[in-house]
Amino acid sequence: MNVLALIKSRRSIRKYKKQIPSDRIIHSVLEAGRWAPSGLNNQPWRFFVVKDNAAKNKLASFTKYSRVIKEAPLIIVICLNLKDSYHREKDLMAIGAYIQNMLLQAHASGLGACWLGEILNKKEEVAHGLCLPKGFELVAVVSLGYPDEFIKAGKRRPLKGSIIPEKS
Amino acid sequence: MNVLALIKSRRSIRKYKKQIPSDRIIHSVLEAGRWAPSGLNNQPWRFFVVKDNAAKNKLASFTKYSRVIKEAPLIIVICLNLKDSYHREKDLMAIGAYIQNMLLQAHASGLGACWLGEILNKKEEVAHGLCLPKGFELVAVVSLGYPDEFIKAGKRRPLKGSIIPEKS
Repeated sequence: MNVLALIKSRRSIRKYKKQIPSDRIIHSVLEAGRWAPSGLNNQPWRFFVVKDNAAKNKLASFTKYSRVIKEAPLIIVICLNLKDSYHREKDLMAIGAYIQNMLLQAHASGLGACWLGEILNKKEEVAHGLCLPKGFELVAVVSLGYPDEFIKAGKRRPLKGSIIPEKS
Repeated sequence: MNVLALIKSRRSIRKYKKQIPSDRIIHSVLEAGRWAPSGLNNQPWRFFVVKDNAAKNKLASFTKYSRVIKEAPLIIVICLNLKDSYHREKDLMAIGAYIQNMLLQAHASGLGACWLGEILNKKEEVAHGLCLPKGFELVAVVSLGYPDEFIKAGKRRPLKGSIIPEKS
């Protein structure tokens, strides 16, 4: 299986067709997240899916990327469950793995997605506006739908540029 | 491409054969990490690969999982580059995505890996013992090699158990 090609060809997609992905495909994306690794297998992630316009518009009011949220057929709102959290750094990394699994499965299914982080600047307002129960901390929002744009190759630092040099 | 099956069949592997993976395979694993998404594309991850016994033994002395580190042919030490960091939570999630990419590519290549987090309890001692340059914070260690154990299906909470309930 060429997962490396899948990983390398994934892009952040911010324009979507109106077509709503089937429940089967949405389920497969959420299912991919579920199998992420986590410290002590604590699975600190929680989520809900936003489809209706009223909730999307509310969410959109808390970010400068409101167009993306309004136009995407689906939004996955991802939270850290503070009750399950035993080590904040490890839990956040586990949620990163959880999100990446979903992004890869979305891409493999022909969907486009965008991991939106800027909205975290207003995480308290989002929690209030969306009536999040206590104990759930907003950590990411992922928009999802069939791509209506083509994004050229992304840019990354060459591999060697990420190697930690030996202390001289 | 059935990436969901790959995601679901991945296990944490803690026993390895002596055979050392080829440079080509190691490169493909590191390359998978490189294409992870990050906020503002800041790519906050840095790493180095440990192969020699002296360094592995030193690293092993900082965790109760010393056997895994000593026996694995390869160890990837992963740090947050504090200079590139612009939002600690997003950066840690990006590194989680980075690690997950590597775990999936390792699994797709027939390798087994284990994401070791307990060693973070001694991150200062590791930094000192391994002579990490300033500005790099240890965030994870991944052991890597050909599996010498079979691990049955992992356990995860059912999907519904991760849905955030609506506030009543």
